[in-house]
Amino acid sequence: MATSKRRVYFFGNGKADGLGDQKELLGGKGAGLAEMTRIGLPVPAGFTITTDSCAEFHKHGGKWPTGLLQEINKNLTKLERVCKKKLGGTRDPLLVSVRSGAAKSMPGMMETILNLGLNDESVEGLAKVSGNRRFALDAYRRLIMMYGSIVRGIDRKHFETIFDEVKHTRTRRRLERGNEDKIEDTDISAQEMEYVVEEYKRIYQGHCKEKFPQKPLDQLRGAISAVFDSWMAEKAETYRRVERITGLNGTAVNICQMVFGNMGEDSGTGVCFTRDPSTGDTAFYGDWLINAQGEDVVAGTRTPLRLAELKTFMPEVYEQLEAVRAILEVHYKDMQDLEFTVERGKLFMLQCRAGKRSPGAAFKIAVDQATKGLMTMAAAKRLAKKKYLPNRYATAATKPVITRDEAILRIDSSYIERLFYPVLDSTITPSELKKRLLGTGIGAVPGAACGEIAFSAEQAELRAEEGAEVILVRKETSPEDVGGMHVSSGILTATGGKTSHAAVVARGWGKCCIVGCDALSVDYDAKTLTLNGRILKERDTLTLDGGTGNIYADRFALVRPEAPKEYNTLMQWVDKRRRLLVRTNVDTPMDAQKAIELGAEGIGLCRTEHMFFDPTEPQRMNAMREMILADDVSDRRRALDKLLPFQRRDFEGIFTAMKGKPVTIRLFDPPLHEFLPQHNNPEGQQAVVDELNASIRQRVLSDPDADYDSRKSLENRRVTIEDIRRRVDQLHESNPMLGHRGCRLAITYPEILEMQVRAIMEAAVNCTKYRIKVLPEIMIPLSIDSKELAILVERTHAVAKDVFNEKKAKIKYLVGTMIETPRAALTASQLAATAEFFSFGTNDLTQMTMGLSRDDAGRFLSDYVDHDKAAIFADDPFNSIDEDGVGQLLRMAIEGGRSTRPKIKLGICGEHGGEPKSVTFCHQIGLDYVSCSPYRVPVARLAAAQAVISAPKLGPQVLKANDKPKSLVRPRQSNSPIARTAAPKTIGRKKRTKKANRART
Amino acid sequence: MATSKRRVYFFGNGKADGLGDQKELLGGKGAGLAEMTRIGLPVPAGFTITTDSCAEFHKHGGKWPTGLLQEINKNLTKLERVCKKKLGGTRDPLLVSVRSGAAKSMPGMMETILNLGLNDESVEGLAKVSGNRRFALDAYRRLIMMYGSIVRGIDRKHFETIFDEVKHTRTRRRLERGNEDKIEDTDISAQEMEYVVEEYKRIYQGHCKEKFPQKPLDQLRGAISAVFDSWMAEKAETYRRVERITGLNGTAVNICQMVFGNMGEDSGTGVCFTRDPSTGDTAFYGDWLINAQGEDVVAGTRTPLRLAELKTFMPEVYEQLEAVRAILEVHYKDMQDLEFTVERGKLFMLQCRAGKRSPGAAFKIAVDQATKGLMTMAAAKRLAKKKYLPNRYATAATKPVITRDEAILRIDSSYIERLFYPVLDSTITPSELKKRLLGTGIGAVPGAACGEIAFSAEQAELRAEEGAEVILVRKETSPEDVGGMHVSSGILTATGGKTSHAAVVARGWGKCCIVGCDALSVDYDAKTLTLNGRILKERDTLTLDGGTGNIYADRFALVRPEAPKEYNTLMQWVDKRRRLLVRTNVDTPMDAQKAIELGAEGIGLCRTEHMFFDPTEPQRMNAMREMILADDVSDRRRALDKLLPFQRRDFEGIFTAMKGKPVTIRLFDPPLHEFLPQHNNPEGQQAVVDELNASIRQRVLSDPDADYDSRKSLENRRVTIEDIRRRVDQLHESNPMLGHRGCRLAITYPEILEMQVRAIMEAAVNCTKYRIKVLPEIMIPLSIDSKELAILVERTHAVAKDVFNEKKAKIKYLVGTMIETPRAALTASQLAATAEFFSFGTNDLTQMTMGLSRDDAGRFLSDYVDHDKAAIFADDPFNSIDEDGVGQLLRMAIEGGRSTRPKIKLGICGEHGGEPKSVTFCHQIGLDYVSCSPYRVPVARLAAAQAVISAPKLGPQVLKANDKPKSLVRPRQSNSPIARTAAPKTIGRKKRTKKANRART
Repeated sequence: MATSKRRVYFFGNGKADGLGDQKELLGGKGAGLAEMTRIGLPVPAGFTITTDSCAEFHKHGGKWPTGLLQEINKNLTKLERVCKKKLGGTRDPLLVSVRSGAAKSMPGMMETILNLGLNDESVEGLAKVSGNRRFALDAYRRLIMMYGSIVRGIDRKHFETIFDEVKHTRTRRRLERGNEDKIEDTDISAQEMEYVVEEYKRIYQGHCKEKFPQKPLDQLRGAISAVFDSWMAEKAETYRRVERITGLNGTAVNICQMVFGNMGEDSGTGVCFTRDPSTGDTAFYGDWLINAQGEDVVAGTRTPLRLAELKTFMPEVYEQLEAVRAILEVHYKDMQDLEFTVERGKLFMLQCRAGKRSPGAAFKIAVDQATKGLMTMAAAKRLAKKKYLPNRYATAATKPVITRDEAILRIDSSYIERLFYPVLDSTITPSELKKRLLGTGIGAVPGAACGEIAFSAEQAELRAEEGAEVILVRKETSPEDVGGMHVSSGILTATGGKTSHAAVVARGWGKCCIVGCDALSVDYDAKTLTLNGRILKERDTLTLDGGTGNIYADRFALVRPEAPKEYNTLMQWVDKRRRLLVRTNVDTPMDAQKAIELGAEGIGLCRTEHMFFDPTEPQRMNAMREMILADDVSDRRRALDKLLPFQRRDFEGIFTAMKGKPVTIRLFDPPLHEFLPQHNNPEGQQAVVDELNASIRQRVLSDPDADYDSRKSLENRRVTIEDIRRRVDQLHESNPMLGHRGCRLAITYPEILEMQVRAIMEAAVNCTKYRIKVLPEIMIPLSIDSKELAILVERTHAVAKDVFNEKKAKIKYLVGTMIETPRAALTASQLAATAEFFSFGTNDLTQMTMGLSRDDAGRFLSDYVDHDKAAIFADDPFNSIDEDGVGQLLRMAIEGGRSTRPKIKLGICGEHGGEPKSVTFCHQIGLDYVSCSPYRVPVARLAAAQAVISAPKLGPQVLKANDKPKSLVRPRQSNSPIARTAAPKTIGRKKRTKKANRART
Repeated sequence: MATSKRRVYFFGNGKADGLGDQKELLGGKGAGLAEMTRIGLPVPAGFTITTDSCAEFHKHGGKWPTGLLQEINKNLTKLERVCKKKLGGTRDPLLVSVRSGAAKSMPGMMETILNLGLNDESVEGLAKVSGNRRFALDAYRRLIMMYGSIVRGIDRKHFETIFDEVKHTRTRRRLERGNEDKIEDTDISAQEMEYVVEEYKRIYQGHCKEKFPQKPLDQLRGAISAVFDSWMAEKAETYRRVERITGLNGTAVNICQMVFGNMGEDSGTGVCFTRDPSTGDTAFYGDWLINAQGEDVVAGTRTPLRLAELKTFMPEVYEQLEAVRAILEVHYKDMQDLEFTVERGKLFMLQCRAGKRSPGAAFKIAVDQATKGLMTMAAAKRLAKKKYLPNRYATAATKPVITRDEAILRIDSSYIERLFYPVLDSTITPSELKKRLLGTGIGAVPGAACGEIAFSAEQAELRAEEGAEVILVRKETSPEDVGGMHVSSGILTATGGKTSHAAVVARGWGKCCIVGCDALSVDYDAKTLTLNGRILKERDTLTLDGGTGNIYADRFALVRPEAPKEYNTLMQWVDKRRRLLVRTNVDTPMDAQKAIELGAEGIGLCRTEHMFFDPTEPQRMNAMREMILADDVSDRRRALDKLLPFQRRDFEGIFTAMKGKPVTIRLFDPPLHEFLPQHNNPEGQQAVVDELNASIRQRVLSDPDADYDSRKSLENRRVTIEDIRRRVDQLHESNPMLGHRGCRLAITYPEILEMQVRAIMEAAVNCTKYRIKVLPEIMIPLSIDSKELAILVERTHAVAKDVFNEKKAKIKYLVGTMIETPRAALTASQLAATAEFFSFGTNDLTQMTMGLSRDDAGRFLSDYVDHDKAAIFADDPFNSIDEDGVGQLLRMAIEGGRSTRPKIKLGICGEHGGEPKSVTFCHQIGLDYVSCSPYRVPVARLAAAQAVISAPKLGPQVLKANDKPKSLVRPRQSNSPIARTAAPKTIGRKKRTKKANRART
């Protein structure tokens, strides 16, 4: 769109070189000014230097790009022509502001210099033309201070001291007169101002060994360089790192004619929103100050007035502003955040941008904009009549400005997340946050939590019972910690990524969780943690912000938002629009219930092994451990027989909760060693010995027929700690991720599979007898080969048949497999011979495809993801699906699966199923459903609808090996609600697509 | 080939239903009999029941397949017609033998019943027609005993007792007569035989509660069932498991007219080879007995005569046998193992099969058969003149019968392996082996070794220094054990597979190694091992057979074979024929030298990290550990600076040894934790502390300028055990295979890469200055992304440029990457933008593609590989490349790589590079080279040539996702030297192939 080499974009007189969507190039402010100028709003004229120029400047070590100065001169001349004033002219001088403005807002981080163009001569001109010498001198004084500090690095306090002295002298004098009113800046007289200016120039010269520059062009050059420099200043870099702002070139520089809100009672300045940003209400909302400049509003030294009061003070200006509000909403079709200044009764717009809003407001605004107008017909007519509002805008302002689809696109997934999770109170100031920030990890589950530190699950449970809110802090979590995790308000781990144990479990509960905090070291013995040099001990308090991954000292106030009724309206639109079904990953009836409330249409992943950890029924774990310690099939079967009734009850509960919705049950998956305490936990091992022996003893005591011999023989079966230790040794694996788990266990121990299938089928039949509909989908995990799968599928059907025969009943069910190894994806056409569905386990698939352990990668993945523009990966591949690698395998597997079984059911149950970008990809490659943790269900629903609206559809297709897949999917930035990028083309292969479509009907 | 439902195949009268290549269906013996009959050799008539019938029999729980009996009756009638005798006829009865015969030889495992058809009446007929009643009764006695024991399960000793009693009585009588000659069976009179027969029948009836069956057809049915049953007998199953015989249906049953070698001095029986099986010499070689039956030769009760003596005893028969020898060699084009019987001067051939031979003989025979005739013209003419040898055979027998290509195909890779490794003395009897067998693991490196047990590397080194031969027995090995591994004769581990640490390191040295011995448990504290119930302690002796994976108690005699000159001849043919280059995986100049002697054409993988473990230069490891313990870049650089000279010298040595052949150097790969003793080794940790501190102290003491302060400051840098423990904690990974290693380390610590590249380039430049040619290929390991690779390639070039500038020299080198993650294969077209070569690291690629840890899979992979026909995988995927999964990724990567860089160099450096089937695959998919451990280099050379000769070529091609790749490669069995299977078609895509060819020229 932009001429490649143009570096300066002019705006003024109703025309602008730039466009509103050139934020990347012109910065947010520059683009806004250009667009407002174009649509005829009163904007002071000026020009914008591109962000590319800033990038070039830094690339060449702070040298100005060739030709930039000439372009600036040319545009300055144009500006002088438009304003009919000369920069630093002696009579009616043109003054300009020089402001930074990047594509993303970085409030308070970047520099601004006002009143540029004033010098010893032009200040007199300004004095004359404004009829206010004090005002002119004050402006000059401010320029010298801003220029001195920003461009030449002179400490501001040197200037402030002078001014304070003057004020102090005056105060003393006033007190001597018996007047106790506080001296305001405005009390300083012109004469005193003159003294201040002279002193400022003296300070400047003292520090810089040269006089304050009198040539306006010198001032301009210095100011522009300073703005460029400010981009790389430490505070700006830190801000970007903390706020995870990446992908920016640099800042633009806006040079703009000065307008003054401090020229008297007919002047003023303000900030406003076209709608209420906290509630979304259709009210014009803002603050303003009379006779003041922008900084005064920001600085908060004076208490601003409500916008409505402007109506009283300046009714005409207010109506003009109302018109501007309508024009901008109609034009941008979104709520806007505006800055304006009134100079002697004349309104100037200084900035406009999409306004930040609360999650609730986001829904209300989107739905309102899609269903009704901004203002009443009467109001519009009134403004039109006064010619403030052109007719076409007047009509438009009374009607919906966006479609339902646009409303859907307007909602960012983070709004949904923030709607369901507690968050830090928005009134906490950034500086407070900064002060108490201890460190940052990977925010695995959004929402915030406060509580006292516990370093063990036991401590967490103990304190929670005593009523404390607890933050569980661990190096890493394991299934043994689940109890403690459940009672904690938040979880913090030193290792792991977004799909680590801690993250996955916490996400299921929607519980705040931060993982992979590299800087965190935990000393379990000393019961202390060290984080960036700070040492905290057990029961010290912490606040976690799972949204940002930030960890704060002490407690912060938390707020739990409430969803407005427009949330439901919009989600209904979403559900009508999406093609992808959304299921959930849950393991208990309670969670299933919650997920249904959040819109889940089935269970995509029910992990049966979590059921064994239920602390309320230790018999489960005991039986499990008996099974693991068994030396032969018959002992193993005996232990499994004990588990059967528990599992059957589990499934009955889940089927009942799901009321006939499909329930995908994954057969036993984890390596067995996870169920035994390891060697670093000898007490735990002893406890297992005691429990198992107690249960053996119990069996003898409770058996009325037990004679001496049977007692004796049971005695012989007593477990010793050596038994445990030996089995732990035997089960130890160097790389458990690639070890004896998943369906490999079922190959070695078919009896485990048989017990589970029996439990599922018996539960299903029992439910149907109570007229509860059931639709079980039995999922075999970690398959790597068609023969392996065929053996297990056959066994599954055999057990089902047995149960049906015994119970004289029959129900419909499916048997399928999880595609979570590259080999499964590569041989999918063969697997589909016996698998009736595929569910992509993209967590493990990502680990294996990339050779990246999710538990270990946290330590170095930041070297891959956080490198700003040079980053190897744009996203953490455990968070957002790796489309080039893992995505390619998915597409191959889909094609392979459908080639064998055209109607094969396809879903994803990895953590990616709840991440918007990944959901888009799942939609594009043609999956039937995604499945995610309950709290991500609404996010997935939204993303699925957004994908339908804006993502190009990718039918299943044959990829040539190593086709650059990037070209097949919509580009990264199109994830933002208003994607203007042209939709990329799919690789057209009509024949293929036709075939694929046929296959899917 | 076979009619699907035919179950019985007749042979006799010069015609046969079966063919010589129907071994699978007819068993080896049946196929041989059919073929010999077809080509006109004197074979007793008979028929063969197929192996499929046996399989059906077992499938239906021991029920005879429908129709089988009818077919047998039909063929029996035909046999009676051909023999002009009736089975069990009263005058001149037809007698038959019933023998098992599977497709693979299982000596001594299967059952045989002779003389079937005799009963109380026919025995008299036989007496009459043979003129020898004692002979007839003896035959009947033997039938009753064999039938009783084999068909009815009566313990043989009951029969033997009777016979012994008779012998004893007679001996007593003879002794009473003063004659001290030992009584032979032949001394028993007809009258006594009659008594024995009666007693045998009594015993039979006593055990079976019914009379010995008099109906010949009943006898036949019983015998056939018994042979079927014998297939599933425990001893046969055990034999198959131990010998790893898989893929068989069952046994065939051969029913054959009896001929008798025990009918007097004009009768006899023998076993012979058409050439000397130990040396390969062109001499007719064998043993025979006069007036004896086959069992007598096998039983070894009588000392057989050399075959040459047959010439004296029966000159005509000998010449007939010479003719048979010539006919069979000409016909089968291979050395044959024959069984014959002479009945009253008439020669009968009872069996022929390819003869087993020593590795040296294999080479000599193959080369001889390809270069000269079996016999002289004179000998051939003599036999032809007597009409014993048809003319066409006579001519052929004086000329080479095979081509050089066929000679190449004739060599099985195991011959080469057995040619270089010590093996168990072949005179050790199977029963002795069986008796001393303790257990079996996975044979990772062939060859045998004896020695005393050491449970630690230290103990191994200690005892080796004292001159002992040592077998190092460990649960698993780690880099810390390398010293002890090196001094041991053999290595045995409880865990791990063929690509575990122990296996890979041992293979590099050609050192006997058995891994993954599940049944083995090692108690390091008690210094004992337990293996299938046997407990051995330190310094007990063991013998390992790395070829079979068998572990024996005590010492066995070992033999180190010597290669005959024909080995060199044949390998020259091989080298002319192959297209694939063969490189080697070595880390030291000495190993490089060895590999060159074995034919290596370059180094495909030089693992730089192994160099740090050199126990003779502990400074290396110290510097390495300093580097790991360093807290910042400058400390890390300081430690690396110390390593630089060592590494430079390493590379100089290797370049010098390789004399300009390409040397692929893999940059640092392993996770850092491998270099620190873990928590289970506190002594080791303390030793590290002491070493590092000593080296710090050394530095202070040796610094003449060190003042108090610098001493003090160095003092502050002293390492504590807590430092080590903390770093070990920090470096701990849940899944190190998927952790911080490979080029990820270079992303995090660029200085490691920089040091190594500098060392390589400085070494290269130094070598060229001494006129030593060098061709370094720098390989970046574990890449997953093109951006990641580009960063590292750029850094590599930058360092090289620096070195060239400093040294004012320039050398040619390549930079490439290892493709060892699925993602690298999937994004190969992008990686090829910066990579000048790809080397497939199929070990890790297999682990990740299948989600199988090579260190852990040993424990359960047997459930996948050893299931006979039902096995999920035909081969251990770490041994032989998984063509369906990993192979598909290889093909995608090749296609992708060449699409970007048509001349990209492609090789494989995983362990598969030395495995014949995998080498074939590498040839087919178009790699440029394979690389393997030195001792596998000849194996790879051979396999590469065999691939050219017999494997269909697969050009690089686009695979549709999930094309069944099996159809693309030659089937498994074609790996055997004589593959008759029709070569499968490649998927013809002319355009592709053309393009690919163009790309490669």
